[in-house]
Amino acid sequence: MTRFRLTIEYDGRPFVGWQRQARGDSVQGAIEAALLAVTGETAAVHGAGRTDAGVHAAAMVAHVDIARDIAPVRLMAAINALVRPAPVAVTACTVAASDFHARFDCIERRYRYLIVNRRAPLTVDRGLAWHVASPLDAAAMHDAAQHLVGRHDFTTFRSVHCQASSPVRTLDRLSVERSGDRIVVAAAARSFLHHQVRSMVGCLKLVGAGKWSSDDLAAALAARDRNALGFNAPPDGLTFVAARYDLSEDLTTS
Amino acid sequence: MTRFRLTIEYDGRPFVGWQRQARGDSVQGAIEAALLAVTGETAAVHGAGRTDAGVHAAAMVAHVDIARDIAPVRLMAAINALVRPAPVAVTACTVAASDFHARFDCIERRYRYLIVNRRAPLTVDRGLAWHVASPLDAAAMHDAAQHLVGRHDFTTFRSVHCQASSPVRTLDRLSVERSGDRIVVAAAARSFLHHQVRSMVGCLKLVGAGKWSSDDLAAALAARDRNALGFNAPPDGLTFVAARYDLSEDLTTS
Repeated sequence: MTRFRLTIEYDGRPFVGWQRQARGDSVQGAIEAALLAVTGETAAVHGAGRTDAGVHAAAMVAHVDIARDIAPVRLMAAINALVRPAPVAVTACTVAASDFHARFDCIERRYRYLIVNRRAPLTVDRGLAWHVASPLDAAAMHDAAQHLVGRHDFTTFRSVHCQASSPVRTLDRLSVERSGDRIVVAAAARSFLHHQVRSMVGCLKLVGAGKWSSDDLAAALAARDRNALGFNAPPDGLTFVAARYDLSEDLTTS
Repeated sequence: MTRFRLTIEYDGRPFVGWQRQARGDSVQGAIEAALLAVTGETAAVHGAGRTDAGVHAAAMVAHVDIARDIAPVRLMAAINALVRPAPVAVTACTVAASDFHARFDCIERRYRYLIVNRRAPLTVDRGLAWHVASPLDAAAMHDAAQHLVGRHDFTTFRSVHCQASSPVRTLDRLSVERSGDRIVVAAAARSFLHHQVRSMVGCLKLVGAGKWSSDDLAAALAARDRNALGFNAPPDGLTFVAARYDLSEDLTTS
């Protein structure tokens, strides 16, 4: 049995999300089906994160155990050939330590959220960004975001379906940067609660539009109450961009 | 009658190209249909360039004459509302001089060609980039590209369907730059022949793959013969990015 580490890119639009579900196509299911066709084995693929329907990945990391003797480069090519036409691609594949765990060993996850801030609707970015027509103050969003950085109880920013045992998380970074009509929110933490990034971006949008002050955001965090939440940003703009595993800059990024 | 100048972004995938044709949906046709619905007028939209099927635009410039009294900001909003669900958006709209001509007054057109150079197939970039699996030497491509810069007879790089009266063009810039697995070719000229950018990129790919030397590219140019051409790069990677109109840095860019 060999444990492989996969780096996976996908377009989340046609999927119910990363995780296998009773109904609908999942990214995990698409890769597992390709693996079954390649190896004849029913193998579970474990991802670093579980992205929602419509959320994309530039470099999701996952592991899987395969009994059949196969070189990583051949495994990668075979999965990519068999997963078509689903918009999923294995961009890297290596043999991992037998105890490597893509989810439990991950020490940092990074997400990027793209907002296109202009009157005109989206064309090539449709499904890949959140279109906000009214002007947003990205500098105010960035300043307010710093209230959320650090160790906090993020109950306000947590889905009612979140299965984590604790609502406490340490947010390492939350930056907001504008380039022309594009605003990029970058978030990094060891782990996130369900819907946390989209909830934070939804509230930052209220700050950017002048509907919330920076203090309102701080008060929403302090409330530790889901009812204090502005709203979730749509999945379209969200991309899982990297998973880090140790201190030796073992960073898979795009 | 008021002449309006429009800046237009579009995803070329569902279209037969910019230009109205007997069959299939064109970008020009989609905008003209929206204009008819807004104003009740049958108005011809004149673009700076005529992109092929599958070619995108970040900022195509066009002009159109409208008799009805309407503010530019309202015209833009109305076109954008009525052109849906086609992936076309007017991103800017201003009143132009009555003799402004988007095609004939244009002093520089800029195109960008995106190659994704990696083994893994495309996911989010599908239809928006050319996937080249074998390694390309972008520095060699850039060096060879400099043979094409300047005033030349570009017969080799011209479609047999090209309607231009002369095959002589002055190429102001042709640069090739790599960032990770993405290679961007940027081209600028007062005007281009039909298929010229895709033909040049197709030949540069041969140079990048080591199949052609820099001298082979120079020889193909000197041959002034379509049979000396390597091949056309696919439309997917090509985007019309800017049209310039005068010396006062009147640059519409993305």
